[in-house]
Amino acid sequence: MDYLNKDNLNTVKIIDKSDYPTKGQKPSKITKDIVELLRSLDIQDGAVLSFHHHLRNGDKVLNLIMKEVQALGIKDVTLVASSLFPAHSELIPLLKDGTIKNIVTSYISGPLGEAISHGELKGHIIMQSHGGRARSILNGDINIDVAFITSPSSDDKGNISGVNGINSCGSLGYAIADSMMAKKVVAVTDSLMPYPNYPADITEDYVDHILLVDSIGLKSGIVSGTTMITKDPIGLKIAKDTLKVMEATGLLKDGMSYQSGAGGISLAVTSFLRDYMIENNIKGSFASGGITGFLTDMLEEGLFDCLYDVQCFDLQAIESLKKNANHLRMSGSQYGNPEVSAVVDNLDIVILGATEIDTDFNVNVTTGSHGLLMGGSGGHQDTAAGSKISIIVSKLFSSRIPLIKDKVDVITTPGSTVDVLVTERGICVNPLREDLISKFKEAKLNVIDIKDLKGYSERIMGKAKNIEKTDRIIGLSEYRDGSIIDYIYEVKK
Amino acid sequence: MDYLNKDNLNTVKIIDKSDYPTKGQKPSKITKDIVELLRSLDIQDGAVLSFHHHLRNGDKVLNLIMKEVQALGIKDVTLVASSLFPAHSELIPLLKDGTIKNIVTSYISGPLGEAISHGELKGHIIMQSHGGRARSILNGDINIDVAFITSPSSDDKGNISGVNGINSCGSLGYAIADSMMAKKVVAVTDSLMPYPNYPADITEDYVDHILLVDSIGLKSGIVSGTTMITKDPIGLKIAKDTLKVMEATGLLKDGMSYQSGAGGISLAVTSFLRDYMIENNIKGSFASGGITGFLTDMLEEGLFDCLYDVQCFDLQAIESLKKNANHLRMSGSQYGNPEVSAVVDNLDIVILGATEIDTDFNVNVTTGSHGLLMGGSGGHQDTAAGSKISIIVSKLFSSRIPLIKDKVDVITTPGSTVDVLVTERGICVNPLREDLISKFKEAKLNVIDIKDLKGYSERIMGKAKNIEKTDRIIGLSEYRDGSIIDYIYEVKK
Repeated sequence: MDYLNKDNLNTVKIIDKSDYPTKGQKPSKITKDIVELLRSLDIQDGAVLSFHHHLRNGDKVLNLIMKEVQALGIKDVTLVASSLFPAHSELIPLLKDGTIKNIVTSYISGPLGEAISHGELKGHIIMQSHGGRARSILNGDINIDVAFITSPSSDDKGNISGVNGINSCGSLGYAIADSMMAKKVVAVTDSLMPYPNYPADITEDYVDHILLVDSIGLKSGIVSGTTMITKDPIGLKIAKDTLKVMEATGLLKDGMSYQSGAGGISLAVTSFLRDYMIENNIKGSFASGGITGFLTDMLEEGLFDCLYDVQCFDLQAIESLKKNANHLRMSGSQYGNPEVSAVVDNLDIVILGATEIDTDFNVNVTTGSHGLLMGGSGGHQDTAAGSKISIIVSKLFSSRIPLIKDKVDVITTPGSTVDVLVTERGICVNPLREDLISKFKEAKLNVIDIKDLKGYSERIMGKAKNIEKTDRIIGLSEYRDGSIIDYIYEVKK
Repeated sequence: MDYLNKDNLNTVKIIDKSDYPTKGQKPSKITKDIVELLRSLDIQDGAVLSFHHHLRNGDKVLNLIMKEVQALGIKDVTLVASSLFPAHSELIPLLKDGTIKNIVTSYISGPLGEAISHGELKGHIIMQSHGGRARSILNGDINIDVAFITSPSSDDKGNISGVNGINSCGSLGYAIADSMMAKKVVAVTDSLMPYPNYPADITEDYVDHILLVDSIGLKSGIVSGTTMITKDPIGLKIAKDTLKVMEATGLLKDGMSYQSGAGGISLAVTSFLRDYMIENNIKGSFASGGITGFLTDMLEEGLFDCLYDVQCFDLQAIESLKKNANHLRMSGSQYGNPEVSAVVDNLDIVILGATEIDTDFNVNVTTGSHGLLMGGSGGHQDTAAGSKISIIVSKLFSSRIPLIKDKVDVITTPGSTVDVLVTERGICVNPLREDLISKFKEAKLNVIDIKDLKGYSERIMGKAKNIEKTDRIIGLSEYRDGSIIDYIYEVKK
């Protein structure tokens, strides 16, 4: 508004009557012609293309679009995908031929991750947290050219709802930043709804194009094997001890807030917590994160006042999001962006997993025991940093591979934000948390120094084998604030 | 992410363990000390400060903040207030002493508007539409330094809800762009709620500070005298004829969409439309705009599938927003931003008022018959442009002042987007809409050329008196796309 600073408005030009607007429909946003759409988007070599993962292993959109990008001969794409699953192993040839140069993601599992670990990516892989992803998109650290939003339903103007449609997958939290910041936004859908499609996770004012496809994937693919309560007696013992830990913190009381991952032990903790809350007549304020039916049951039982849902982990969660007014959607930024106040900052307790942990409590959930990419922070970094108490639950060994190491392969979450480790052989407390050590001793919990627990582990199973790596750095483990916390090296074949 | 383009990541620095994040609460956002808050915001001379008007004439926040700004000696503020009411006449001294230099708004009524028309503002006034306001904030045309969000309720992190709190006023649609784009966002509230406060119109990730005050205003002030159905027989005749016009367009059918202003005749049209829809068993898709109890009744009767609510015009609308899942909030951008696809683009019919109209169908709702500022576009420009058919309803004379003029005092809405004028002496159709002329003739409606109607008007009441203006341009009437459609001149005292 330059004219605000003019002394005199006489020089401001008024539009001529011949330039008055005409009424009439804007051009249609809908197309079924993916090639024509991609051409019209004028995607250049080196473009930054983004995708979200709310259909998880059931997603077909990422493969579909990227194969068309490949067919058009576009090279050196930076793929910004909120997570990648075994279903996306079809992308491996696109690494080799240079269609995809870089990958920025928060989680990767399956053959694609292994291929990247073996050096197949020409550029680099950047592993972010969920909150870090939102931060980097919103603050311009990453500039997305085109966001392809897998849309369970859309109307002809682009009102996208995650709870309507054949493949309703619930909250679209990780796609919100993309829809706000990408230069162009394409809703990809297999369920065209009458206008207006509501409740909309993303409204029409953020959507430029709508691509109608036969199928965006398979809704059932959002449920992975990990979203079941463990039946393993060792896992159940860990979960029971974790409840005792939580009780000893003094945080299990009215108004409490809680998050857990969807691993088998974490879910068992949630189940024991539910019993505890009922017995002790405790009403919590909120639970958050990826939401499961375990939490929606607790919501409907009145054990939590509301849920903050960034993604639905099972079909029951989707139904709840559709019907319960206190089952709230949240964006990735609202969830965990470190540059703003976020839901994670209000968490009392978070229950998290670990593939490896070292004696400084640094956690690796990015690579597996062979050093291959098979995970990522997701919300791990964000909730560990934001919560009053972060608790790692894990068995000491997984397939005879020890949990505790001198140095984790890749630091995902810095030990300074990890407070407690609960294993079947004892509870370790981060020395930074003197307050907890005294509380746990008072509660007569089996507290053990993590160095001693490592010693015990090594006496039984020996030290973890060294992973054979080359000296080529293939990627970076990014902390949620954008700083780099570790390198990721190529693994020898 | 500069490192994506590096050939080798060896030179990327990893954070040192000593720089690892520490856990712990972020600083509190809450303060009761307005002076200290304003000082900490470091507001400079020439700052751009924004406010919204959802409490309408009941708002106390704008006066409160601006008087403190005045007390701090800050000068030359550009005030970006979504609308201004008689309650804001307390700001007149701030024009005179140079605290406020420029005003950007979508509606102004009362003594403040008169003072500006008489030349009291040192800078300029820019009159925008609601959609144009959102456009200019989101595209960076206006850069807001601090947005003060009148918040009916907030928790200690800044989750703002318009349906909770002593002064719940419903949707906060016009504040959304401000909360997204302002450099700093202050939630001003008199109702502090437990965390998390939901449903949130604005979530904590957008809020930097929370100012606790004794009172943000008076909720009852949102209801103005205009939100009553006219009892005037002439007004009722116009409303009945308008229903006939709507019927003749062929748009009154299942799936129809509708908006009307909150003037007495417009509300009568809505009431007749309700009867018509019940009689003819019609179910509409949506109604939109400022929402009244007339529309929420129709929603609850199933006459519309949903409502799009950018602001609540009465207390019944607030209650409906709180309880009805198909009473949807929308932002000002989603409502009418011309640079995106917006709800107005999907409107079949809009019913609007006019203070003046000329024979080219240009409408003035910005100034009154004496040339003084006493209105503004609000959504007038947006809905006229977006709708399939825009209908102006008005009596030929208001207090013996004629409606139809050779040239309107200030063009608010260009005639190219205004389709029909319904008066007590006949129905005028914009010659651009040949399709309507033939339909109306077929329906045997009393169609009359607008020039003939002007002649009739002048034979009865004479021409409108010329308004005495100086040659100083005090402001601009901005079209929704940012072009300037007319000058606003100083009026002689």
